[in-house]
Amino acid sequence: MTTAARTPQQDRSRATRRRLLEAAVDCLAELGWAGSTVTVVAERAGVTRGAAQHHFPTREGLFTAAIEHVAAERLAAVRAGTGELPPPGPARTEAVVDLIVRLYTGPLFRAALHLWVAAATEQPLRERIIALENRVGRESHRAALASLGVAESAVGVRESVQATLDLARGLGLANLLTDDAARRAGVVRQWSRLLQAALDQASSDRATLDQASLGGRPVLD
Amino acid sequence: MTTAARTPQQDRSRATRRRLLEAAVDCLAELGWAGSTVTVVAERAGVTRGAAQHHFPTREGLFTAAIEHVAAERLAAVRAGTGELPPPGPARTEAVVDLIVRLYTGPLFRAALHLWVAAATEQPLRERIIALENRVGRESHRAALASLGVAESAVGVRESVQATLDLARGLGLANLLTDDAARRAGVVRQWSRLLQAALDQASSDRATLDQASLGGRPVLD
Repeated sequence: MTTAARTPQQDRSRATRRRLLEAAVDCLAELGWAGSTVTVVAERAGVTRGAAQHHFPTREGLFTAAIEHVAAERLAAVRAGTGELPPPGPARTEAVVDLIVRLYTGPLFRAALHLWVAAATEQPLRERIIALENRVGRESHRAALASLGVAESAVGVRESVQATLDLARGLGLANLLTDDAARRAGVVRQWSRLLQAALDQASSDRATLDQASLGGRPVLD
Repeated sequence: MTTAARTPQQDRSRATRRRLLEAAVDCLAELGWAGSTVTVVAERAGVTRGAAQHHFPTREGLFTAAIEHVAAERLAAVRAGTGELPPPGPARTEAVVDLIVRLYTGPLFRAALHLWVAAATEQPLRERIIALENRVGRESHRAALASLGVAESAVGVRESVQATLDLARGLGLANLLTDDAARRAGVVRQWSRLLQAALDQASSDRATLDQASLGGRPVLD
């Protein structure tokens, strides 16, 4: 009886946790760090303050877990959508750049931005956010490579993909106070062209290298 | 006698104003928006709180003026250094990208970032910062074009230069909590190569267009 009764309770607990995480991201995106207290989040999630504190004993823990949870969900959605993209080439590259930039101009980025900036001056947040930044950064880079359908072993690919994520972050920041969509569309198109040229160059370098190896000639002479 | 005595007083007033503006940027960069009060800035500038309020009646006015003042100084320094850059080509392009990225990874960017993020949730700041962002954005774009030695009338140049400023903003954000210099160097090199390719393409498109016009053939047929 005790074992049978446990599962729905665990389910309820997981659902509560999830509601808290999603409400935390919404609060941060709308109200910023100063306005986002555990009480405000609990209220928005329809949960008592006690229940919120049971799940997340510290404010820092709640908001860091919230960004990680929502980022993981978004990245999983990106990965799941990879099969529906056109084959590698200009159309796919532009679709992927556009997708990445969308991720960095939505509420998740806005929430993360508030948390990052708060972490610059609040020590209890700082270490947590540095660790989180490493994990999310690595996962985003992998998801971008997989979406573009490229391997990062070719010369310049790693840096070109990193630059794409840095550009997306900058575009996210430019969209903070005003709707920057019209300007951004032109930047996304132009960068997609330049990125495609870099990927083409990398794959042609690679083909030359493969041919040289197959022919038994030294790769560098 | 009254007229003669006035000039040193005006000089003192200007010097006080300048010290306040510089202290305001330092405070913002170090302490963030919540920690940057007029009292803290006045103390750091070695000025009484009353004198600070005489120059800047509102906290929002002080910090907005501070970012504008320091940004204008940095842009003037960039413009003054244009004559010492190599002629247009890969070396100049990389030097300019590096210079722009340096501007966005220093204390001025850090200070601006704190102010921008505060403006997202504080109405009295918001309007001021939107106007400031327009002015500084336009000036930065012009300075980047002049430094690269290119005209933005060629196809793709405007968007490539905008993308470079967006990239720099993203790299500035990536440098907020940890020293990102090593990774950034690779991104700057790769971006410079791709930007150069875009500028070369634009100038060759332009040459073809000019030739077509000189030959009396319709440009589009």
